Amino acid sequence: MTDTKSSGLDVFAFPGSESAANALARNLQAPLHPITVHRFPDEEALVTLPDRHDADTAVIVCSLDRPDAKLAALLFAADQARCQGINRLGLVAPYLAYMRQDKRFHAGEAISSRTFASVLSHHFDFLVTVDPHLHRYSTLDEVFTIPSSVVSAAPAVAEWIAAKVERPLLIGPDSESAQWIEATAKLIDAPSCVLQKTRRGDADVSVSIPDIAAYRCHTPVLLDDIISTGRTMAAAVRQLVGAGGPAPVCIGVHAIFADDAYRMLCASGGGATVTCNTIVHVSNEIDVMPLVAAAIRALEQDQS
Amino acid sequence: MTDTKSSGLDVFAFPGSESAANALARNLQAPLHPITVHRFPDEEALVTLPDRHDADTAVIVCSLDRPDAKLAALLFAADQARCQGINRLGLVAPYLAYMRQDKRFHAGEAISSRTFASVLSHHFDFLVTVDPHLHRYSTLDEVFTIPSSVVSAAPAVAEWIAAKVERPLLIGPDSESAQWIEATAKLIDAPSCVLQKTRRGDADVSVSIPDIAAYRCHTPVLLDDIISTGRTMAAAVRQLVGAGGPAPVCIGVHAIFADDAYRMLCASGGGATVTCNTIVHVSNEIDVMPLVAAAIRALEQDQS
Repeated sequence: MTDTKSSGLDVFAFPGSESAANALARNLQAPLHPITVHRFPDEEALVTLPDRHDADTAVIVCSLDRPDAKLAALLFAADQARCQGINRLGLVAPYLAYMRQDKRFHAGEAISSRTFASVLSHHFDFLVTVDPHLHRYSTLDEVFTIPSSVVSAAPAVAEWIAAKVERPLLIGPDSESAQWIEATAKLIDAPSCVLQKTRRGDADVSVSIPDIAAYRCHTPVLLDDIISTGRTMAAAVRQLVGAGGPAPVCIGVHAIFADDAYRMLCASGGGATVTCNTIVHVSNEIDVMPLVAAAIRALEQDQS
Repeated sequence: MTDTKSSGLDVFAFPGSESAANALARNLQAPLHPITVHRFPDEEALVTLPDRHDADTAVIVCSLDRPDAKLAALLFAADQARCQGINRLGLVAPYLAYMRQDKRFHAGEAISSRTFASVLSHHFDFLVTVDPHLHRYSTLDEVFTIPSSVVSAAPAVAEWIAAKVERPLLIGPDSESAQWIEATAKLIDAPSCVLQKTRRGDADVSVSIPDIAAYRCHTPVLLDDIISTGRTMAAAVRQLVGAGGPAPVCIGVHAIFADDAYRMLCASGGGATVTCNTIVHVSNEIDVMPLVAAAIRALEQDQS
């Protein structure tokens, strides 16, 4: 390290988030540094940051799917970044975990979102994320004590649909998503509607399709923020195909795809299954990193 | 929960540490409560504490082998305990992770022990652990900001050896362990010595046995604080057996046993392989929970 610091922002890539970090660094024209995590036989992590940078402000890009396996190493990386003289450290978590656990649904349950946000707030100075799944919180400020910037994937998703799908009809998974689906549809002047969903367990979901007879000439586009077990989307695909309509396109912002969810969804009879590059996955086709870069630039301008 | 609180201490068992928690609660004559961790398909953890207790002071028993997989859920449990009105919350980590990463061995390496201790210090009021593997720190106070009590397994180990091994010769793994091995040997008036160890990698270790001709009628007892890959101990077993001596007994305080280490060690030609109950394992034979209970009682007396 040198004593003279550049005024720019450096990008550090946490293992697993290299491609998002790479795209982000390219958009920001920022230096990119890899973080390495070595696993000892006892499963402890040894985290190493490259020492040859002169960053004063930096972001660590770490998508927080499968969060428990990453948390300790991410905190080690953050503290090491401080030791290397980084004064302002942001977390870019294209996917942010634990935000759905915002309430004690049964006595004795931990409200994990609060603890998770508190730990991250303690180790970073700001947060940038894409479409966090908020139910009862209206903003991240209710749980994070650091400034955060929430990027909407909608413009990138809408642009992809407009370019690739003829006469799209956007279909959301449930009434909660109505506002988001409508806003996305509006960007490309497309019609939209939402499914009625009944959830009986983590992976046991049934859906009913609204009357879409008026849109017989449209291509259904099933759109959800997270595809986790994929059951909701697969159930919707089967109903749409069963009703004799065209094979729907499936779009998720965040490609969690638990266990065999992707294979199962692909086998359900739909058309393409497409996701944003917030969680690295073979289905990533929609690049949201230009939007993330713009959010970081805006945060930095507010700061200066 | 009621408004009237008992003045005693309750014991909460983190998943995987049930048997240690059970033994501890029995020794303390304290109420025992299970913590449950449900894994969602997306690998997030849902942590639940029983709500029907009136504890004011409590400990969570969580052995921190394979630490990264446990850290998030442990912090959720700690915060939930606070929400339930527990005012004084201790962590009983019979095995404490990350203490060996106490130095930057190469540029850019995170000093994980500092971050790990800082996060735990932030969520608990005191810490009780058994024989942490400290190199360059002389006490846990160098990294923990909360009071800690370090339990030595030596009395329980010595007692087991005295009861089970005829004419034991205690053999430590390296010069660093000499003081600990001598102290343990002294408790039962046994002779002791240490191996010379050369480590070339995580799992590549060679040892040389000192001249033990004078102890031909003794049973060698190989004693280490942590058995992780088991390579050191297996190499020592093979040398002792190869030199025509009796099959040595292998004792470890902490039964990490990475991958196939236990099978490999058992196959190396030694006698019994025995560990303390700090990490649950089929080889656990030495109960250190009475010592842990005594340490907690002493901490609580200091407090009152």
